[in-house]
Amino acid sequence: MKRIGFLLLAVATLAGIVGHMAHASRQSDGDSAPIYGVKIPDGYRDWKLIAVKQLLLEGKSNQLRAQLGNDVAIKAFKEGTLPFPDGAIIAAIHWTRVPSESNDKVLNGPFPGTESFVVGSPLNVQFMVKDSKKYAATAGWGFADFTGEKPGNEALHETCFPCHVPAKDHDYVFTRYAH
Amino acid sequence: MKRIGFLLLAVATLAGIVGHMAHASRQSDGDSAPIYGVKIPDGYRDWKLIAVKQLLLEGKSNQLRAQLGNDVAIKAFKEGTLPFPDGAIIAAIHWTRVPSESNDKVLNGPFPGTESFVVGSPLNVQFMVKDSKKYAATAGWGFADFTGEKPGNEALHETCFPCHVPAKDHDYVFTRYAH
Repeated sequence: MKRIGFLLLAVATLAGIVGHMAHASRQSDGDSAPIYGVKIPDGYRDWKLIAVKQLLLEGKSNQLRAQLGNDVAIKAFKEGTLPFPDGAIIAAIHWTRVPSESNDKVLNGPFPGTESFVVGSPLNVQFMVKDSKKYAATAGWGFADFTGEKPGNEALHETCFPCHVPAKDHDYVFTRYAH
Repeated sequence: MKRIGFLLLAVATLAGIVGHMAHASRQSDGDSAPIYGVKIPDGYRDWKLIAVKQLLLEGKSNQLRAQLGNDVAIKAFKEGTLPFPDGAIIAAIHWTRVPSESNDKVLNGPFPGTESFVVGSPLNVQFMVKDSKKYAATAGWGFADFTGEKPGNEALHETCFPCHVPAKDHDYVFTRYAH
């Protein structure tokens, strides 16, 4: 009986770990974005990296960006699965891009003329959530944009889907996996 | 006995999953970098994101960069643990930065004057491995630089540690966690 007790404990412990993993995509208790009702998914900052970008928005706001994906999204990116399967979520984190004088001071010794830029303050985070039934009207994707914990307004969220239509051939996703 | 058989199977399966996780930091069978003997860690591309950077190297090579960390490194970054504990590994992936005309075409509709840049081809990947005994001569850090699977030469690797000395107050690590 001792051995069965140990096995039960081992199963319970390991099931707990796996259960925790399975819940990695659940949503927070915070506000929902308008139109789509998307909330900030718990733990998204720990998702795997899809790619990085730099964007000079309207010639003014210089940004560094990272796209992360939950496990469903990452698997689809790696295997080239299109359309993305239900359950896929892509997070795009946007920060200000700021010059790093301290890095430059070091780097200009061995590498003269080097300019380096790091992330400054967080700007906003956007999500694309694939649910082909719930979001059938927008090609299966729900969109959300948050500044901190606060979702953008309805007018902002009305711009998401039309802007993504030109990426229709890649299931409305602009980002490609960075190998 | 049927139930015990099921439990054994369940333990074996779950232990396999956990065992796989525990091995996430093991090294590949490829070449070792000179001086430090560091190999490319298996699965590093799936590590969690520390931060992103942009670098214009010597005024010529424009790069987008991502720093990823294994679980030991990420925990230390999040909790502000200094020095980093043994077992921490930081990976820095460097890509060329290329303009995205197709993204610009879309973005310049709603956001005129926007310029976007995405990752092009991979350049090199660098690793910092913390082992306070093995790398005692270099403040506990082993360094490695690979282009594809091929490590850089000894002269290159001799430059790693001296270049990181100005970051001594942050345990020789330039990168900060991007919140």
